[in-house]
Amino acid sequence: MAEPAAALGHVRDQVGRALTGYLGRQRAWAGQIAAELLPAIDAIRGVLDGGKRLRPAFCYWGWRGAGGADQPGIFTAAAALELLHAGALVHDDVLDDSDTRRGRPAVHRLFAARHAGAGWHGGAEEFGRGSAILLGDLLLAWTDELFAASGLPADALDRGRPVLNLMRAEMLAGQYLDLLEQAAPGRGVEDALRVVRYKTAKYTVERPLQLGAALAGPVRPALSEGYSGYGLPLGVAFQLRDDVLGVFGDPAETGKPAGDDVREGKRTVLVALARQRATPAGVRTLDRLLGDPSIGADGVAEFRDLLTRTGALAECESMISGHVTEALTALDALPAAPQAKAALAELAVTATARRG
Amino acid sequence: MAEPAAALGHVRDQVGRALTGYLGRQRAWAGQIAAELLPAIDAIRGVLDGGKRLRPAFCYWGWRGAGGADQPGIFTAAAALELLHAGALVHDDVLDDSDTRRGRPAVHRLFAARHAGAGWHGGAEEFGRGSAILLGDLLLAWTDELFAASGLPADALDRGRPVLNLMRAEMLAGQYLDLLEQAAPGRGVEDALRVVRYKTAKYTVERPLQLGAALAGPVRPALSEGYSGYGLPLGVAFQLRDDVLGVFGDPAETGKPAGDDVREGKRTVLVALARQRATPAGVRTLDRLLGDPSIGADGVAEFRDLLTRTGALAECESMISGHVTEALTALDALPAAPQAKAALAELAVTATARRG
Repeated sequence: MAEPAAALGHVRDQVGRALTGYLGRQRAWAGQIAAELLPAIDAIRGVLDGGKRLRPAFCYWGWRGAGGADQPGIFTAAAALELLHAGALVHDDVLDDSDTRRGRPAVHRLFAARHAGAGWHGGAEEFGRGSAILLGDLLLAWTDELFAASGLPADALDRGRPVLNLMRAEMLAGQYLDLLEQAAPGRGVEDALRVVRYKTAKYTVERPLQLGAALAGPVRPALSEGYSGYGLPLGVAFQLRDDVLGVFGDPAETGKPAGDDVREGKRTVLVALARQRATPAGVRTLDRLLGDPSIGADGVAEFRDLLTRTGALAECESMISGHVTEALTALDALPAAPQAKAALAELAVTATARRG
Repeated sequence: MAEPAAALGHVRDQVGRALTGYLGRQRAWAGQIAAELLPAIDAIRGVLDGGKRLRPAFCYWGWRGAGGADQPGIFTAAAALELLHAGALVHDDVLDDSDTRRGRPAVHRLFAARHAGAGWHGGAEEFGRGSAILLGDLLLAWTDELFAASGLPADALDRGRPVLNLMRAEMLAGQYLDLLEQAAPGRGVEDALRVVRYKTAKYTVERPLQLGAALAGPVRPALSEGYSGYGLPLGVAFQLRDDVLGVFGDPAETGKPAGDDVREGKRTVLVALARQRATPAGVRTLDRLLGDPSIGADGVAEFRDLLTRTGALAECESMISGHVTEALTALDALPAAPQAKAALAELAVTATARRG
């Protein structure tokens, strides 16, 4: 997404400003404790720099859709979601033992390299992992601090907090189900879709929209349900696009090496579709290539070929457009402000037609 | 502490009740998402079961000292600190690669064993670690949820939140400085004491007391400063007692194997004192034994002997009593309710004269 859509661009600037201001204050706080903390704060800034600000955008348009006005407080509250997401990503990269994130070394790799470069005591890998766990925790803790300091009225924040808390817990439940699914694959596409619902669809679209609405005013059931009707299918489509990009994406656009999901052995919905459609020999090939740490360009090409030949890729693309259509139909009926509906229509495309 | 002191006993029961109720509701929530989540919830319950409830006790007596009444809301808000602490411990055990916690297998070991037992895909160790990271995150997220749901008035919670947020961030900063200190040891006792101040003293005593006071009413500077005057030295003494128990403690009382801190290579204040006092040959012996994963009973005995012979143990014990005296002197001048002052005097002993 070199050109952010209008619905995203305005939010991106304002959220970026809120994050920069907050990080500046946190850097001053950390420096008063110990200068040794500053590289850690800078690493956090690095993670935050590259974000698409998708969750803040849904939160903001959820607020606008509920009749909220364009004011600094909502951008700051929405920016808190970006801290939460950065914390989740830092931990997720430890879980997946990923090398890169947003085109830079993953935080645990960054700190392992510092350790190795300085020739410190103990294991560099353990130091990198420990640092990433603590920095992720700090980001999760900062989420609440920035949210509380947004400047929105106390009663608005009190309405929003249960949504924020639920969205965090659901995301973590989804992540744990994903970990379990990688270790002990379930019955196929349905189990993979349940992971997607919690790990991505609720967390990325539905709950941020509902959080924005809760911040704007007391719950209006028709609006809240409309946000679910739009948010859940769109969130699933967003993750399916991610699944496709994880195998077929261009490294220059995704910021990750080609076929990274194959190397990491990710059992996505796309993979579940391929396993369902492949011959027994095809399934054996998929399983052999999936999670092979030394897989090369040939192996990735073979994997892609299987996904294409079985029709899994086409089915996944058709699921994406089906889910986007479902989201847009729900959006049509949504009792929300017209400008917000237009922005959400645009975000539906941005989130699912992206290349990185 | 087989017999909880009176100042701790009442809080322990009430906090335990709040945690049991909350976990029951979370278990129902998790079960609605997926039955596979239930073992994770049960593992969390296991971690929470063994806690001393020391931070909730300081929070409660901080509230009482500020004139707060004995009511269920304060126990629930204080119980949130126990969720935070459990999350920190689950992550800390991953950082230290500890085998046990509170006499049970550490969470990451528990899940690694489940993985190995079931013969699942991928590495059992990685699965255990990933599960522990996510469960720790969930505990951190639940902290805010239980705090918000305590039933205390919204304005009380709004006064308390900045203290809660600061205490979390300081603890994580202290933990990171500790990790750094283990990897690149600083200039000795002073650096080790700085870690203790943030990782333990503020987090365990000072901030919980101030959180209780903030929940009870608007800030009274004399009370807040008095809580620091009592809390910081007492918190340091608490950690120094931990350092001593980590080397000299009885496994039956600590719930950890004998000499566990030596095996894990913990560079504590006690160790820094010994290095300062030892001969060059003694320093070499300390460094050889510290962090030796295969250290046996003989090695632990040799390490203990060096700590005793250099006078480091005696100096550490004298620092403990000096800090406790300092805390009690500050307590004497504290402008707080008499019953709270009596309880805090009792807690000062409980926290520093314990054997486990």
